[in-house]
Amino acid sequence: MNDSNDEIFMRRALELAKEAAELGEVPVGAVIVKDGEIIAEDFNRRELDKNAAAHAELLAINKACERLGGWRLTGCTLYVTLEPCPMCAGAIVNSRLSRVVFAAKDPKAGAFGSVLNLNFYPLNHKPKLESGLCGIEASAQLRDFFSSLRNKRGK
Amino acid sequence: MNDSNDEIFMRRALELAKEAAELGEVPVGAVIVKDGEIIAEDFNRRELDKNAAAHAELLAINKACERLGGWRLTGCTLYVTLEPCPMCAGAIVNSRLSRVVFAAKDPKAGAFGSVLNLNFYPLNHKPKLESGLCGIEASAQLRDFFSSLRNKRGK
Repeated sequence: MNDSNDEIFMRRALELAKEAAELGEVPVGAVIVKDGEIIAEDFNRRELDKNAAAHAELLAINKACERLGGWRLTGCTLYVTLEPCPMCAGAIVNSRLSRVVFAAKDPKAGAFGSVLNLNFYPLNHKPKLESGLCGIEASAQLRDFFSSLRNKRGK
Repeated sequence: MNDSNDEIFMRRALELAKEAAELGEVPVGAVIVKDGEIIAEDFNRRELDKNAAAHAELLAINKACERLGGWRLTGCTLYVTLEPCPMCAGAIVNSRLSRVVFAAKDPKAGAFGSVLNLNFYPLNHKPKLESGLCGIEASAQLRDFFSSLRNKRGK
């Protein structure tokens, strides 16, 4: 099931997450790939965009639909550094994304196995799921970000 | 808990759903209200926008965040003619929307009681939920739309 380029695409998602952190956003990056090519990518912009829906995955899905000229992302893989929340997992189902590879689990909001798993419900699409690729790096990015935030707030 | 104006706002959502149907979209309309005033509204535009994320509720949430200048929709009520799907229910949780009133239940994708209920999970926000207001009208709109679609396809 693994694409030999999975790590390359996840490392790009980690780079995007790093950009987010540098702008003061919770570091989450997402990349959508079709036929071995990146067709869309983004990072979490909730604070920059002042929008609760501006998560990396949803922004990348918007761009991928625009790029492909339709709402179906069949045949695409989404690489994301953190397990999708219910909103993003739902957008993945709605867009018929074929495969999702996520790095770190999210025990607070993860909707592909941690808090709940959308694939357990009789919805009209179930993406293939893989987790853990570059999970240590993604978790470290998040930990460093929140640790730095706490230090700043403590000053 | 009921706002005496609930029916007025739901009837506006039904009008928006009618506009959607006239444009060939599955008829779903959504209105977001704060302090008795409509601050955002939209209808389902999945086919028009060619975007899996272009559901009425998510589009209205985007507009409400823009209008209020922040990602928190605390104190707002969302009126929607159909039970939110997991994506939209997740966006409602993410935006801390205080209250959701939906008309018709969605046995295929409803994420506030039908297929699943996001409020049953330990996420960081639980909106107040009410259902059934103008449910007969909303269900009739949907039934008529799909019936007309089948007739066209049958020709």
